[in-house]
Amino acid sequence: MNHLLREEKVFKDPVHNYIHVQDEVIWSLINTQEFQRLRRIRQLGTSYLTFHGAEHSRFSHSLGVYEITRRIISQFERGAYPDWPSDEKLVALCAALLHDLGHGPFSHSIEQAFEMHHEDWTCKILLGDTEVSSVLRTIGDGFPEKVASVIRKDYDNPIVVNLVSSPLDADRMDYLLRDAYFTGVNYGTIDMDRILRMLRPYQGRVVVKESGMHAVEDYLMSRYQMYWQVYFHPVTRSSEIILRQILRRAKQLYGQGHEFLFLPDPLPGLFQGELSVRDYLLLDEALMQTAFMQWKNESDTLLSELCTRFLDRKLYKYVELESCDVDRIQDIRLAFAEAGLDPEYDLEIDFPSDLPYDVFRPDEASKEKQILLLDHQNRLREISEVSDIVRSISGLRRGKNYLYYPDNKINATLDRLPRDIAQIFEQKR
Amino acid sequence: MNHLLREEKVFKDPVHNYIHVQDEVIWSLINTQEFQRLRRIRQLGTSYLTFHGAEHSRFSHSLGVYEITRRIISQFERGAYPDWPSDEKLVALCAALLHDLGHGPFSHSIEQAFEMHHEDWTCKILLGDTEVSSVLRTIGDGFPEKVASVIRKDYDNPIVVNLVSSPLDADRMDYLLRDAYFTGVNYGTIDMDRILRMLRPYQGRVVVKESGMHAVEDYLMSRYQMYWQVYFHPVTRSSEIILRQILRRAKQLYGQGHEFLFLPDPLPGLFQGELSVRDYLLLDEALMQTAFMQWKNESDTLLSELCTRFLDRKLYKYVELESCDVDRIQDIRLAFAEAGLDPEYDLEIDFPSDLPYDVFRPDEASKEKQILLLDHQNRLREISEVSDIVRSISGLRRGKNYLYYPDNKINATLDRLPRDIAQIFEQKR
Amino acid sequence: MNHLLREEKVFKDPVHNYIHVQDEVIWSLINTQEFQRLRRIRQLGTSYLTFHGAEHSRFSHSLGVYEITRRIISQFERGAYPDWPSDEKLVALCAALLHDLGHGPFSHSIEQAFEMHHEDWTCKILLGDTEVSSVLRTIGDGFPEKVASVIRKDYDNPIVVNLVSSPLDADRMDYLLRDAYFTGVNYGTIDMDRILRMLRPYQGRVVVKESGMHAVEDYLMSRYQMYWQVYFHPVTRSSEIILRQILRRAKQLYGQGHEFLFLPDPLPGLFQGELSVRDYLLLDEALMQTAFMQWKNESDTLLSELCTRFLDRKLYKYVELESCDVDRIQDIRLAFAEAGLDPEYDLEIDFPSDLPYDVFRPDEASKEKQILLLDHQNRLREISEVSDIVRSISGLRRGKNYLYYPDNKINATLDRLPRDIAQIFEQKR
Amino acid sequence: MNHLLREEKVFKDPVHNYIHVQDEVIWSLINTQEFQRLRRIRQLGTSYLTFHGAEHSRFSHSLGVYEITRRIISQFERGAYPDWPSDEKLVALCAALLHDLGHGPFSHSIEQAFEMHHEDWTCKILLGDTEVSSVLRTIGDGFPEKVASVIRKDYDNPIVVNLVSSPLDADRMDYLLRDAYFTGVNYGTIDMDRILRMLRPYQGRVVVKESGMHAVEDYLMSRYQMYWQVYFHPVTRSSEIILRQILRRAKQLYGQGHEFLFLPDPLPGLFQGELSVRDYLLLDEALMQTAFMQWKNESDTLLSELCTRFLDRKLYKYVELESCDVDRIQDIRLAFAEAGLDPEYDLEIDFPSDLPYDVFRPDEASKEKQILLLDHQNRLREISEVSDIVRSISGLRRGKNYLYYPDNKINATLDRLPRDIAQIFEQKR
Repeated sequence: MNHLLREEKVFKDPVHNYIHVQDEVIWSLINTQEFQRLRRIRQLGTSYLTFHGAEHSRFSHSLGVYEITRRIISQFERGAYPDWPSDEKLVALCAALLHDLGHGPFSHSIEQAFEMHHEDWTCKILLGDTEVSSVLRTIGDGFPEKVASVIRKDYDNPIVVNLVSSPLDADRMDYLLRDAYFTGVNYGTIDMDRILRMLRPYQGRVVVKESGMHAVEDYLMSRYQMYWQVYFHPVTRSSEIILRQILRRAKQLYGQGHEFLFLPDPLPGLFQGELSVRDYLLLDEALMQTAFMQWKNESDTLLSELCTRFLDRKLYKYVELESCDVDRIQDIRLAFAEAGLDPEYDLEIDFPSDLPYDVFRPDEASKEKQILLLDHQNRLREISEVSDIVRSISGLRRGKNYLYYPDNKINATLDRLPRDIAQIFEQKR
Repeated sequence: MNHLLREEKVFKDPVHNYIHVQDEVIWSLINTQEFQRLRRIRQLGTSYLTFHGAEHSRFSHSLGVYEITRRIISQFERGAYPDWPSDEKLVALCAALLHDLGHGPFSHSIEQAFEMHHEDWTCKILLGDTEVSSVLRTIGDGFPEKVASVIRKDYDNPIVVNLVSSPLDADRMDYLLRDAYFTGVNYGTIDMDRILRMLRPYQGRVVVKESGMHAVEDYLMSRYQMYWQVYFHPVTRSSEIILRQILRRAKQLYGQGHEFLFLPDPLPGLFQGELSVRDYLLLDEALMQTAFMQWKNESDTLLSELCTRFLDRKLYKYVELESCDVDRIQDIRLAFAEAGLDPEYDLEIDFPSDLPYDVFRPDEASKEKQILLLDHQNRLREISEVSDIVRSISGLRRGKNYLYYPDNKINATLDRLPRDIAQIFEQKR
Repeated sequence: MNHLLREEKVFKDPVHNYIHVQDEVIWSLINTQEFQRLRRIRQLGTSYLTFHGAEHSRFSHSLGVYEITRRIISQFERGAYPDWPSDEKLVALCAALLHDLGHGPFSHSIEQAFEMHHEDWTCKILLGDTEVSSVLRTIGDGFPEKVASVIRKDYDNPIVVNLVSSPLDADRMDYLLRDAYFTGVNYGTIDMDRILRMLRPYQGRVVVKESGMHAVEDYLMSRYQMYWQVYFHPVTRSSEIILRQILRRAKQLYGQGHEFLFLPDPLPGLFQGELSVRDYLLLDEALMQTAFMQWKNESDTLLSELCTRFLDRKLYKYVELESCDVDRIQDIRLAFAEAGLDPEYDLEIDFPSDLPYDVFRPDEASKEKQILLLDHQNRLREISEVSDIVRSISGLRRGKNYLYYPDNKINATLDRLPRDIAQIFEQKR
Repeated sequence: MNHLLREEKVFKDPVHNYIHVQDEVIWSLINTQEFQRLRRIRQLGTSYLTFHGAEHSRFSHSLGVYEITRRIISQFERGAYPDWPSDEKLVALCAALLHDLGHGPFSHSIEQAFEMHHEDWTCKILLGDTEVSSVLRTIGDGFPEKVASVIRKDYDNPIVVNLVSSPLDADRMDYLLRDAYFTGVNYGTIDMDRILRMLRPYQGRVVVKESGMHAVEDYLMSRYQMYWQVYFHPVTRSSEIILRQILRRAKQLYGQGHEFLFLPDPLPGLFQGELSVRDYLLLDEALMQTAFMQWKNESDTLLSELCTRFLDRKLYKYVELESCDVDRIQDIRLAFAEAGLDPEYDLEIDFPSDLPYDVFRPDEASKEKQILLLDHQNRLREISEVSDIVRSISGLRRGKNYLYYPDNKINATLDRLPRDIAQIFEQKR
């Protein structure tokens, strides 16, 4: 059963000013060890190596997502809209708070390297033998599973799923504002108050009053800018590449039976692909950085060099690839091998368009991924039908292709590379 | 010899917007491993457990101090003031950038626990076999020593020392603004532009034009508020106490020959008080947090519990002590011992007034610690002679005394404590 | 009877983001001609001649005061505090919105020159034959009188008066934030959200929870700084002096039967001291500026010169008076007369301490003017008993004395003034 | 000859923090009566009736444009770029400061009503018998003409014209930031510092380094949003329509020999189309508002009603016109006439696309109106060739068509209008 706190608790937050906690269960969830662990996982992975302010954690972000969700629901309650199922408030708040619980250290990189998915881990933590699960069960035995199904997007009340996960959800609004604040770029400033005022529960979805269209346009443009200015920044990409190479190399070595000087739990499990929930919760960025620091002294030169690069921020250089060069990647790899370089580690091609590109593209979107406008005659229209600017940007997807490489090695090998390939790297000053 | 970069480099900074690097040596210093290590040391120690936004590092702060110093000097150069020795620019910039280089993880706590001083370590790093020292020596063989002597405050050109270390220096201005920004409190917003415009080099000191008096008043009041609202926040103090107890306990155990499950380098050296510069540079907050995480499983219950408290934020509760109770501390300790509690770990008394209290108190200040106003007739006056408000706040020093304790243990023992002592803890709900 | 609007209306506001109107009567009041007139009266009188951004109107401020009051009451309602009389909400909101309705052009200056009081005019407008009065009567016949008595501070439910007029009221919070925003000074930034969260209705008053003490300290310090930095700025004082001299001279001329080239209604009534409510409402700053513009061509040189000074911002210069000089003012006046100057217009002494000095001084404050803190044992204490910093600043009152004068005239007469008096003016460069 | 001020003067500005004046001639220009008159002309005309914060004047904006220009030139000087003609600094600063000097009250409306152009008046004031002209002549006899030719865009050094007037000029940057600040909308926040850092003088133009492309994209998107959210807001358009109708009606009446109760100079000259520079400078918004206030009592009902509408903000209602309805406007006018309405005043159709639409459209732009990017090989490319997002938005031009009308009159006549026309107005609730 849910209880209200005798007195509301607040957290001072630089983005939302105050985060208000009124439910005892929310307060207890925040105080679990699994939620506190999010303090040791940065919201933006390695972006701090590009934007030194971006040292904020998933703990802050999770509180922010909870707070925005709380404000949306509170607005729904004030409006007494019949389409909002008021008894779903608590499950929505819990799902908002806990949606990132399963993120690992340097989330996207570790997911790629070890083929894990943070949503799976979130659900395992919600349902496993954890403090979070105990707290949720105080509401009811089936409550952890309800929260998990919202996160898996198969909850039977679709408006709750839509509230927590949609192109205009609390998650995206918080990260745009928060990442803009901590990096210091001002592309992410959106009029959240206005957007929140314009949201309406309607026929199993959260939709936007038509008069809020311009605020949504501005939000989508901010997101577009943040993707290109911050999330896909080539320096950040470079650091992620090194990070993935470290993980790949360490796993290779482990597979080859290498004796690590330093390999505390749960790293062996991670390399074997056998992690219990309890093991997984031991993984955090402090541990990874400590391992990298110790691995600077590993006998494997490649691993040791990569760790030094990562910790001392000696990143790979990059050159933009013309589209003609992209087709020649296989040639470049061969030439690298012939010149004595290691094509597996000494060059990486990065296509941001291969990423889970989050910018809004209504044409390919399933119904759930659309933003719908509600006009004063209660008609729903997908936003790009109405907004010129959304239609204009929604088709855009071309990103630049970059080739990343260790410049000291390549520069020392330039004369052993075919002339036309050497030229690609010489353009970089 | 100093060289200018072919093109200025910038860092995007949320506090100063952009940080401008024009000198090659500054750029090279930032790229040393010793400076990059500051990314792994938080600016505000454990304050992030109170203000979740306060996850910013000493790396950010050091860049900020450099930038403010650069702007001050640039203003001095534009004004062509004869009292500014223009050939001291580079040594001042380097000292500003590097002044926090010797900070260890959770700086003040580790200094207290192991009787170290970060200034000493800064100088050792400047003068030792380090990348920073190599970079500095490109300017001249004696240059590392010059920078070190500015930091030791015995440099022979006092205005350089005064610029880098005084009650109105770049260090304090940056941390006020930065800590306010990242915690989200708005007490620290000061009109830095105005203060900078009002600074003048004069007779071997940096002084303030009289018309800048109100801006300085506002700065001193902001500092006062930040001390009480942020730096001395009892929740932060509680987490520092636990941190110090962890360090104290681990050192005790090490001294008793305890076999740690996890004790990577350079922790043994830290406990023995024998750290080389190379060892010291391996210490960072990632390592400490990783050790605490592993120590959760140590056989020593006390250490294991303390680590759990720190990582999962189960902090000590606190009660305010009336002044009469302060005098009874010895009695309380005895009563604790008799009741089977551990007076060494189960209660801590904290007097903020014992801290290096940074709020301005001109009456006890040596000449160097004063803020001097320069009037239009070129007379100098100490600010509290002129400003009513500064005089008013400069005498204030009383802080509250708090008693910190593990509430689960104390609550379980209340009936074994004398009534009057039990009452102290019962007032807390 | 009060009705809610079918849908909430909002105003975009730079200070409070959005101003929310939910009651039909509030919406109708805003749309009356008497309330719209406040758009033509600046919030800070002549301060725009010092701070060019300070062109905001009493219309904006009045909306802001309404909004803060609405938020306070809404917090009281959420908390369901028994000490808040919920049926007083509407009278409180109306009084907050309308409290400045009777302000004339360049409020304080015109009040001084013609011995009027804006509160009186506010009440006359509320009770007279006006659109505002008609709208208020839709709630009930006695409603205009209820609102008026809140403004006169004799309403029989003291907590309503206290809410609208006290040292921590919505009026003061709005003007601090708004004036800081539009002037661009950052002394006025306060944590209003926190203060609002800490207010409690208690025993017929609005009091502050003890844990909000530091936020109140910060508010009082901001107010102190705004007084000295903005409200008492000598350049603003200079422009007010010229404005008062214009009004004084025009009234003199009118009394002497001077034939003005331009004297539209209701200026004759203003000079005769006979203004109906209808006349008074015709007075605004557009009219005053237009009159001054036309009076540049009046035959009376003094009036014409003063109008030119005001419109073209050729203000009086000022010198700070030492306290010894203050005692000699009568001598200076005599010397001015002997030298052929006009002591009535060619010098003005200004003592800010004679002003309605709003900075908090608990020692002289009646009970209503105190800020009371409510501790967790429900004890009330006046804030300066608890806060060192409030006690420190509350005694401060000394301002500087300035002498204002037309420098062209005085400079041309310096050799005809006694040496010691001439010296006072010569210090000014 | 130009002289530097003994000491820099500053103005506190909410947008740029401080505005720095270093040249004596700039200081003197600001203190002329013609420049001070800009305090009495709002930057955004009647927008304050939609956004109550938008009460800022052209005085503030002009200082802002000057300051941005100063910062650009200062950056050019620091970079010592050979393409920047350093002896043009002063003419550029003067042109930036004075470019809006010729604006009349409610600028665009009065220009439309009386077929005037503010640039013409600016040049007349620069070259006429004015204080501004005298000050400029202290630099040299031909200096006023030089400044005027920059404003007329025929100055013989094209980079100076380009600096003061181009799609990325100081004028546009200041108004975006300033209008966003004072209205409170956050669409206009741009990273001006970054844009300024990226500007380069190159071959007679100001161009942008390619790495500044995203900042320029963001600026163009902000501009797009500001146009639709603020500048073309239908409530503002409604107030402008009423204003133009007032001016049109008053001119008609004057032409018909109507005896106005109130018609001070220079209004007769304005109606006759015969204004000297001296007359023109008497026109300001205070005068216009005073006239409207007095005209509330004029015998002509139409004029009197319009003035009441304007001053008391009883604006025309509006309905969006479907494109089919646009073609029927002539029919609607006829139907209005037949129903006894006045088609000349009782309806107005507004097509924002007819306005001087400032959003960037490179396809129709002459070379001067393009934004050029400079890549690291010194090639110039028009931005929409490189930026997907700019190409996407640059084609957009469709605005909504609105029909404005006095709803009391139309509602009273609905049954006399043909059914299909009445329906247009009935959709409005």
